[in-house]
Amino acid sequence: MTINIGVFGATGYTGLELIGILENHPGVEVIFATSESSAGKSLRELSPRAPDLFLIPSAEAPFDQIDCAFLCLPHTRSAPIAAKALTQGVKVVDLSADLRLDDPAVYEQWYKVAHSNPELLPVPYGIPELFEREKLMKAACIANPGCYATAALLGIIPLASSDLFLPGTPIIVDAKSGVSGAGRTPKSHTLFCEVYGNFYPYAIGRAHRHVSEIEQEMVRAGLEAGRLIFSPHLLPTDRGIIATVYAQVSDMEAALEAFAGQFVGEPLIHLLPEGELASLAHVTRTPLAAISLTPVTDSLLIVSVAIDNLLKGASSQAVQNFNLMFGLDEMLGLLPVRGGIA
Amino acid sequence: MTINIGVFGATGYTGLELIGILENHPGVEVIFATSESSAGKSLRELSPRAPDLFLIPSAEAPFDQIDCAFLCLPHTRSAPIAAKALTQGVKVVDLSADLRLDDPAVYEQWYKVAHSNPELLPVPYGIPELFEREKLMKAACIANPGCYATAALLGIIPLASSDLFLPGTPIIVDAKSGVSGAGRTPKSHTLFCEVYGNFYPYAIGRAHRHVSEIEQEMVRAGLEAGRLIFSPHLLPTDRGIIATVYAQVSDMEAALEAFAGQFVGEPLIHLLPEGELASLAHVTRTPLAAISLTPVTDSLLIVSVAIDNLLKGASSQAVQNFNLMFGLDEMLGLLPVRGGIA
Amino acid sequence: MTINIGVFGATGYTGLELIGILENHPGVEVIFATSESSAGKSLRELSPRAPDLFLIPSAEAPFDQIDCAFLCLPHTRSAPIAAKALTQGVKVVDLSADLRLDDPAVYEQWYKVAHSNPELLPVPYGIPELFEREKLMKAACIANPGCYATAALLGIIPLASSDLFLPGTPIIVDAKSGVSGAGRTPKSHTLFCEVYGNFYPYAIGRAHRHVSEIEQEMVRAGLEAGRLIFSPHLLPTDRGIIATVYAQVSDMEAALEAFAGQFVGEPLIHLLPEGELASLAHVTRTPLAAISLTPVTDSLLIVSVAIDNLLKGASSQAVQNFNLMFGLDEMLGLLPVRGGIA
Amino acid sequence: MTINIGVFGATGYTGLELIGILENHPGVEVIFATSESSAGKSLRELSPRAPDLFLIPSAEAPFDQIDCAFLCLPHTRSAPIAAKALTQGVKVVDLSADLRLDDPAVYEQWYKVAHSNPELLPVPYGIPELFEREKLMKAACIANPGCYATAALLGIIPLASSDLFLPGTPIIVDAKSGVSGAGRTPKSHTLFCEVYGNFYPYAIGRAHRHVSEIEQEMVRAGLEAGRLIFSPHLLPTDRGIIATVYAQVSDMEAALEAFAGQFVGEPLIHLLPEGELASLAHVTRTPLAAISLTPVTDSLLIVSVAIDNLLKGASSQAVQNFNLMFGLDEMLGLLPVRGGIA
Repeated sequence: MTINIGVFGATGYTGLELIGILENHPGVEVIFATSESSAGKSLRELSPRAPDLFLIPSAEAPFDQIDCAFLCLPHTRSAPIAAKALTQGVKVVDLSADLRLDDPAVYEQWYKVAHSNPELLPVPYGIPELFEREKLMKAACIANPGCYATAALLGIIPLASSDLFLPGTPIIVDAKSGVSGAGRTPKSHTLFCEVYGNFYPYAIGRAHRHVSEIEQEMVRAGLEAGRLIFSPHLLPTDRGIIATVYAQVSDMEAALEAFAGQFVGEPLIHLLPEGELASLAHVTRTPLAAISLTPVTDSLLIVSVAIDNLLKGASSQAVQNFNLMFGLDEMLGLLPVRGGIA
Repeated sequence: MTINIGVFGATGYTGLELIGILENHPGVEVIFATSESSAGKSLRELSPRAPDLFLIPSAEAPFDQIDCAFLCLPHTRSAPIAAKALTQGVKVVDLSADLRLDDPAVYEQWYKVAHSNPELLPVPYGIPELFEREKLMKAACIANPGCYATAALLGIIPLASSDLFLPGTPIIVDAKSGVSGAGRTPKSHTLFCEVYGNFYPYAIGRAHRHVSEIEQEMVRAGLEAGRLIFSPHLLPTDRGIIATVYAQVSDMEAALEAFAGQFVGEPLIHLLPEGELASLAHVTRTPLAAISLTPVTDSLLIVSVAIDNLLKGASSQAVQNFNLMFGLDEMLGLLPVRGGIA
Repeated sequence: MTINIGVFGATGYTGLELIGILENHPGVEVIFATSESSAGKSLRELSPRAPDLFLIPSAEAPFDQIDCAFLCLPHTRSAPIAAKALTQGVKVVDLSADLRLDDPAVYEQWYKVAHSNPELLPVPYGIPELFEREKLMKAACIANPGCYATAALLGIIPLASSDLFLPGTPIIVDAKSGVSGAGRTPKSHTLFCEVYGNFYPYAIGRAHRHVSEIEQEMVRAGLEAGRLIFSPHLLPTDRGIIATVYAQVSDMEAALEAFAGQFVGEPLIHLLPEGELASLAHVTRTPLAAISLTPVTDSLLIVSVAIDNLLKGASSQAVQNFNLMFGLDEMLGLLPVRGGIA
Repeated sequence: MTINIGVFGATGYTGLELIGILENHPGVEVIFATSESSAGKSLRELSPRAPDLFLIPSAEAPFDQIDCAFLCLPHTRSAPIAAKALTQGVKVVDLSADLRLDDPAVYEQWYKVAHSNPELLPVPYGIPELFEREKLMKAACIANPGCYATAALLGIIPLASSDLFLPGTPIIVDAKSGVSGAGRTPKSHTLFCEVYGNFYPYAIGRAHRHVSEIEQEMVRAGLEAGRLIFSPHLLPTDRGIIATVYAQVSDMEAALEAFAGQFVGEPLIHLLPEGELASLAHVTRTPLAAISLTPVTDSLLIVSVAIDNLLKGASSQAVQNFNLMFGLDEMLGLLPVRGGIA
């Protein structure tokens, strides 16, 4: 039995990566792919490795031909299509920010626009290794987390769930991301010559939009709001995130055990042996996360989390969530990873 | 005596580099800088190293306050401003393609638009080391050559002037350029993620616009039209051009002497010793050209030419031409070059 | 039935890529891997994505446990091991240069050392899409071609086999390779800071060792020796080769047909549609070659060939040859390629 | 009056950058340059932009011909040469780690070797904008700080001197450096292919050797030892450091004023206006430091410091210290900086 798929917003980096995964996924067929700006063209014209998929405008998408819609759309454009799909009995994995925040008022605060479809909220937030898998398995709609949020939460939640953060201390996440996280729409600051040889912080402190979804999950895990300090930096490379988490913990041994316990048996999470630190080379072009734990003092733990922002931070996690939704093996289409060097 | 300068189109890469040179040039003052899209801002907001120059729209440029206008504008927008400047007694160095071709019909053929100011043509074409310096010294207006054209002609003209090309053979220039040659306007193909890890030919054969100006000068030097084969490639780096010229010559010894003779005493042209090949590391961020000669057989000579596309291929050559125009030392503001590693 | 494999020289880039392919190849098991400098360690310590393979010195390699040896060794070290393997009935795919040249005198001329095992020569040269597949299928030992040689020959042999080169004209190959082609042994010129922002020609003309194997095959295809002009350049990227071939042909239509005929039905060779030029983005991290044909004049054809130097230029071609040797599907373990963006 | 200079260890990155600065410094002449591995060659053979300086082994250095020795040597090799120079009345700027730590026991603890010349200690530590300029002006010998240490201390000392850190809180420095910081000796981990597309933390917590010199100065400024958490990361670029300092402060307004007060009138320190964050583009290839201050909460301040590791982090700071030592204008040979884009 083949599950029929529609991909909305196929020409951006997450859309292209998603289609790349789905091409080799044994249980699915991509029935259509949409693009507003490139409708009428083949996806192949827009990316030398893409399949020869004819692009249609999303308004012409035949929902009756698909079982699941993946939404790789900008925020505000995604929620209305999710609503339309769900109405017609089509399941949804939404890779935009539209369905990640439970509270539409919080959405409006961070995204400076009223939520178009508050009736859809809340929606399960899909990081299977951290949050209730059962909910994801029964969901008709899943909010796929942001790339920075995935990396940060993989380093924070195991400690938060076990109540191991020292009260009153800031939880500092110094994060660094490759340029593909900024999307494929041409902008000055993502031009080759602006990035090459450069590196810089941006929206540091509590200004980046992913603060909202990271803190929502931190609060759900029992932490008070306001403790996250989140500093993104733009790396002069194409893909990959390293989040370096500085955690002051009440019990170092318990902290290390919390990670071991959280991720035992998780095929995509590589908790590295002592002395080996997470690097982009562990994860780029794979659905994996690599995590290393460095106790520095009795109370200060550095957690280094590496993911590929387009995969575990977006498209492969979306397929993981999809697999759960449809009762498939969670790893279908994701493992084994390609070997060799990065 | 200070020469007063206006820079038109200050926010692109050639404009920024030009202003960088002029800042440390002892004989000039930049009176104004223009930008259409960023008028009202300071140049400093657009580039972290730029001086705090207030940007005005070109329509408000006070020509009566300047002695010389540097035009770093797109083709079609440049010629009308050159005409206006010249009318008011302001000298012009035009870095666009508008004034490079003697014949407006040839311009129209390559740029697909009628020439707006054919009355200005012809204008001296400014590569001082190759063409008549006397003309440049008396000129009110100089056409500053294209970056690829500068590199190709440095490798071709010494042979052409001495009539050393074997009759009937193609003259092949395999050229590779860093991304800044494509300008600073955001476009898909110059995004970081599209260039990083990539490399490719484009507009190869006789399709690139610089074929027109290269062949104009080849013909002027006595070669028949149609012999140039020119293949540009996009390098995944920010700046620099290597042009690899494959020349079939009638007399190898004379060919080597032709280069030595052409460039003797030229401080910006480094004819490398035998066995050392031209590299970007010789030239990036300098006004220099590095040239190496590799005789392969009795008749086949490989000429490798390296320049910085933004400097010898644009802005420093513009200052060289400016210095000549105003009777200054040709090297003023250009030498000595900064030392150290690239 | 599983074919048992030994990999000699597992810690270099071609060794690592080869093991990456073999890990997911359904018909093989890697029994051992060798390294002189890292014997006693796990391959995993040397590369974050490698499997946990214990490394042994080649002197301790148990040939009786394997059916096939892949030799990813430097030249001079490879041939003696090939001889030892063959004596014990173990088939060999040699990725070094040791077995590529039929004539030991030519080997000595280019590699400046007498051939250690001339009794092994000649050995079939394995580019299945170009040369006799039948020979490869029956071979006990295959010489896997050099990376530059693979790229150049894909662009030359279709024309040479059909006798389409204009007599007396040079055959110019301007080639550009990523840095992994220089191997993993630390050397000054492959340090990050020496390559970053740089680009340069090296060993141009007829000086690079791959000239010998390219010309051997050109001569076998009917061309006279001495016509190849081969100019390698070092690209500031990790992997990939573009070879730009300038061919003067006697019949352009026949030339285009020669390529179509040569590569019809070949799953790894993508002859691109008119107007699309080969790029590294078509091929990196895949076993594919992308080829574009650009007729410029009636007689001048530019052939652009793109391959991944570590895959079609080394390890995936080695597996292709292995598959043929053992009567397996030639594409086993190689297709389908991973989708998504580069 | 020309000051005569000897450069020890001229062929590494800091040596080359230093010679590049000294070439254009109006008050000095480089009399000799040393190299053990390349003695007998010209520096020009080792770097395409270097001057034609003949290299001698350090044992043959004629101390009697120079007024000042710059030591760009590995630790342990530097101190004995400093001692020899000082004995002969030659002043010393030591860019190695040998003279940075006041206490030889601390040196031995971090560098795992007894100090060869404890009689030389202590030596003034040369960051003129932070520490006593008067001492530097009178010094016969100056210890030039490490690159990471310079960046970290520029962000920490203004707060420490004014006693503004909240007692008991960790002082976290998340630092990122380009690859040239690792030197020019070929090693596996600095090969192009190992760095390209990669990014990773190393020696994080309190393991990196620069912790010792940073904490020495922190303690001197009144902080208790043990509070520094220092996490270096390797950036895939050639040069530049960003240090992101997370400081918990007792009085935010006073903290901002501390920086303004510390750096008022310092031409090399650019305290950026509110809203502009420090980037490598502000500083690479310049002697500048760019510093931005981001208050996040009432008590949490993020200080972002950008320098070029080879210049303010090494060679230009060495020239600054030299200028002070010899009673020259501190900025001689350093300003004005080259304009244009990065």
